[in-house]
Amino acid sequence: MSYVLGIDGGGSKTVCVLMNDLRQVLGRGEAGPSNYHSIGIEATLQSIQSAIKNAVEAAIITNYVNIDAICLGLAGVGRAADIEVVKGLVKELQNNKFLTINWALKPENIIICNDALIALVSGIGQPVGIVVAAGTGSIIFGRNHQGDTKRVGGWGYILGDEGSAYKIAIAGMNAALKSYDGREISTSLIEGFKQHLDLESIEDLIEVVYRREWGVKQIAALAPIVDFAAASGDIVANIIIDNAVKELVKATSTVIDAIFSADSVLEVITTGSVWRGRCKIHEKFAASLIKKFPNVNVIFPRYEPAYGAGLLALQTTQN
Amino acid sequence: MSYVLGIDGGGSKTVCVLMNDLRQVLGRGEAGPSNYHSIGIEATLQSIQSAIKNAVEAAIITNYVNIDAICLGLAGVGRAADIEVVKGLVKELQNNKFLTINWALKPENIIICNDALIALVSGIGQPVGIVVAAGTGSIIFGRNHQGDTKRVGGWGYILGDEGSAYKIAIAGMNAALKSYDGREISTSLIEGFKQHLDLESIEDLIEVVYRREWGVKQIAALAPIVDFAAASGDIVANIIIDNAVKELVKATSTVIDAIFSADSVLEVITTGSVWRGRCKIHEKFAASLIKKFPNVNVIFPRYEPAYGAGLLALQTTQN
Repeated sequence: MSYVLGIDGGGSKTVCVLMNDLRQVLGRGEAGPSNYHSIGIEATLQSIQSAIKNAVEAAIITNYVNIDAICLGLAGVGRAADIEVVKGLVKELQNNKFLTINWALKPENIIICNDALIALVSGIGQPVGIVVAAGTGSIIFGRNHQGDTKRVGGWGYILGDEGSAYKIAIAGMNAALKSYDGREISTSLIEGFKQHLDLESIEDLIEVVYRREWGVKQIAALAPIVDFAAASGDIVANIIIDNAVKELVKATSTVIDAIFSADSVLEVITTGSVWRGRCKIHEKFAASLIKKFPNVNVIFPRYEPAYGAGLLALQTTQN
Repeated sequence: MSYVLGIDGGGSKTVCVLMNDLRQVLGRGEAGPSNYHSIGIEATLQSIQSAIKNAVEAAIITNYVNIDAICLGLAGVGRAADIEVVKGLVKELQNNKFLTINWALKPENIIICNDALIALVSGIGQPVGIVVAAGTGSIIFGRNHQGDTKRVGGWGYILGDEGSAYKIAIAGMNAALKSYDGREISTSLIEGFKQHLDLESIEDLIEVVYRREWGVKQIAALAPIVDFAAASGDIVANIIIDNAVKELVKATSTVIDAIFSADSVLEVITTGSVWRGRCKIHEKFAASLIKKFPNVNVIFPRYEPAYGAGLLALQTTQN
């Protein structure tokens, strides 16, 4: 019996599924983040190893398991230099004595790609359409029937990530501080952040963000405060959400213009924590996009991205 | 003979002047950054110590020098918690055996304040008016004749710093990447960054910013690329500069509304690297502000901020 591994590595966690050739998931494991641009290569390797170990253990397979193919869909990976780095990681995985795995990987059985591609496959079972990933970070990725791909965004929390949870949280804190300064109309965001973070004054955001050296993941986890304020009717919070929608629609439109046509029938899959808010961001995004591209269908994915990675790995064994 | 120390601590460097009671600067020393929110307390202490040591050595005073007062104007300092931290730093300075100083400081001879206040004093010789500091970070600080003060901004590179060199550089890189994605009209910023950073592709900004772990100071140092593009007529770069001007005018207006009146005769002092650009940002700012507040005079400071710190320190010895 042979198996494959599908790995989804993002800014907040890594998921691995162990799948057989009937597309059945036999084991699933989670671990910490694996965006190596943010956390470094060593920590990324640790997360991936742990996720694999947890998946294999969950499958309750006695003895060693044979792995014929692996697909790693990782946030922040795309350029040739990234691929080389991850190839190195896969080599280290194969040398790891703690994983109870018999590796039987030929080069063509190793797929290294962006997490957006696996999300696309998980969304509709095939790699055609557009995925709009808005979690800790954001990226929009499309692939048409001819196999042409187009990526927009995915430039990380410092250079881009418009519409991501990180950017929504940052915009929320910025607006709260501007309001506190008197530069912006009053907003419930001030109370929202104070309560959630147990601050005496909104000025103490400085203490939280700089002195405690909060990372991207922790800051992104504050996005629900903006979402909640927007859902409660706060004008400032709604402006932030509307801006995020505008950025995501703009980026998605750019992908459609590049590799589809304005009247293409196509599915747009939304993944990531941002879409799960209460403030109707998903409805707003879909309405705005459909206004421009009437034959677009905005959907949630059918399976999780790691499953899409498993499917891509499986494909390499069936050619 | 007794002396005072005036210290200006910012995001890119620390300046110390050794001043006598005739307001003469006898020695001046520079050292690395001292914004303790960004670089930590230990590194801040090191920078301040080095700046003092360099100032004292430059004065060529044999034997120990008597210091009766010290004023530290530091970026990121304002809240009560900050003041306590810096008080601790001053204690450590007094215990430092390597500084050839006889400290004779009473509590009232120690002034700890934001770098904006010392910039204000350095600007017009008295602490009344508004200082618009736009260097690595940004802050707008005003003080009226009654002694009321108002601070706007100064929230640091993650939470604020609108109109700062850091934010201008970030906006420039973001616009270049958006243009590269096809989300934004074409811009010479792509070539600008590629040439300056010796990149094969603008995608390699990721390598530079994340993998090389560039800090705030290094990123802020890229603002002149945006300035140069704007001066050369690049539309995208000019939008970035105009946005920076708008943010700085808005923040300055908020200070005027809070502690002055719309027809107040007052001086607005501009400090920091942003104002020294070629793209007429200073003229644009002045024109826009004077349109709203006709009796405002936008000027460059007469002396450097450390001199203002020296004046404030001196005041405490003359009461």
